Amino acid sequence: MTGATNAASSSSTSTTQRRAVVLLSGGLDSSTTLALAKEQNHDLYALSFRYGQRHARELEAARHLAQRYGCHEHKIVEIDLRAFGGSALTSDEIAVPQDRPLDEMGQGIPVTYVPARNLIFLSFATAYAEVIGADDIFLGITATDYSGYPDCRPEFLEAFAHTANLATKAGTEDGRTLRFHAPLILLGKADIVREGTRLGVPWELTWSCYEGGALACGRCDSCLLRLKGFAEAGLSDPLPYQN
Amino acid sequence: MTGATNAASSSSTSTTQRRAVVLLSGGLDSSTTLALAKEQNHDLYALSFRYGQRHARELEAARHLAQRYGCHEHKIVEIDLRAFGGSALTSDEIAVPQDRPLDEMGQGIPVTYVPARNLIFLSFATAYAEVIGADDIFLGITATDYSGYPDCRPEFLEAFAHTANLATKAGTEDGRTLRFHAPLILLGKADIVREGTRLGVPWELTWSCYEGGALACGRCDSCLLRLKGFAEAGLSDPLPYQN
Repeated sequence: MTGATNAASSSSTSTTQRRAVVLLSGGLDSSTTLALAKEQNHDLYALSFRYGQRHARELEAARHLAQRYGCHEHKIVEIDLRAFGGSALTSDEIAVPQDRPLDEMGQGIPVTYVPARNLIFLSFATAYAEVIGADDIFLGITATDYSGYPDCRPEFLEAFAHTANLATKAGTEDGRTLRFHAPLILLGKADIVREGTRLGVPWELTWSCYEGGALACGRCDSCLLRLKGFAEAGLSDPLPYQN
Repeated sequence: MTGATNAASSSSTSTTQRRAVVLLSGGLDSSTTLALAKEQNHDLYALSFRYGQRHARELEAARHLAQRYGCHEHKIVEIDLRAFGGSALTSDEIAVPQDRPLDEMGQGIPVTYVPARNLIFLSFATAYAEVIGADDIFLGITATDYSGYPDCRPEFLEAFAHTANLATKAGTEDGRTLRFHAPLILLGKADIVREGTRLGVPWELTWSCYEGGALACGRCDSCLLRLKGFAEAGLSDPLPYQN
């Protein structure tokens, strides 16, 4: 694990602030979630993963966002999901789809699904929260807009929360309750763009593209959904695209 | 992640064998669990973790055991739980207790508890099982004999299994059911020693000590419970001890 940085740790941290862990991928959804946790006056501890994804571009985005939001700490955990493979994001043998029609995205679990990814990410978030004494964990999963990922659904998160409290000293002997917040889980991309814009999320610092080019590809599922979100919200995405 | 080895991959693997992931720490319990999975004629995929524990001695033990049992593959996942700390096993600031009376061990969660460790280990096991098409995951947790660990209880494992199936393509779209087996969960150490002995577990290859000396210390909780198990089973532990 590397990259534990103290971004703006000298910023004012009042004693009334409760610590919160925020899972931060650097994309649209996690950035908006970070802004929401900030609005709720939490003392922010950001958590990102270098998990063998195709590029580190999103980690740069996460780093910039953690700094911008004055996170007390930003941990980047190294885990090599590439050793398992099984996803277009962690295996060179599976291509990232391009230019898929939206109705096709809505059918089934996409090849960009990474086996047990959110289960693993949330388990690390649980460890982090337990050690630093944070009872609140925020994540930007959404169950709408064709995500198709089983580990982005409310029933998964509810089951995980129950399990995490049973698993930990925090949730048992210490009498704490770890709470997992997914404030965007029922929102569509357009709603998220509106909410993030209201909160002043610096969209130009975020990164959603599954590819790691100098410019976002504009053709992978993630880019297409992002662009659709901005279009439906009647707003323009400040990020430059290849085409 | 490193250490993916094909130990005895040329061994006979009949088509009737079902694949199973076995969490293998190299200790008494996981070794006996591995032997049980072997007895049930599973095609074995062992999974271990280099997680920042005080020593790598137990990983050597795991490696030898995986070879001895003809595991199809043995993956060693690198995750640095030391970056979180919060445990005598992952922080140099917390000492491993020595010579604790057994009745004291029974009180509360010990300092050797590693925050969210089994949650993290099982999440990786879920990813591994999903990718290789294994529906059975074995682990050697025990809820008895003063373990005191919240993530070793049946209610935790049951909740985790429910969550893992909700989290994965395996448990949803693919219609598989991931089954988590903890065959020793209600056994005491003496029972485990008897069962392992019946199965012919090579005890001399296993390692339980929390310290990483040339010889087992015989004074940490783990050594004391192991020695008590052998004594109560009326058997002798072939492992040499410092005292």
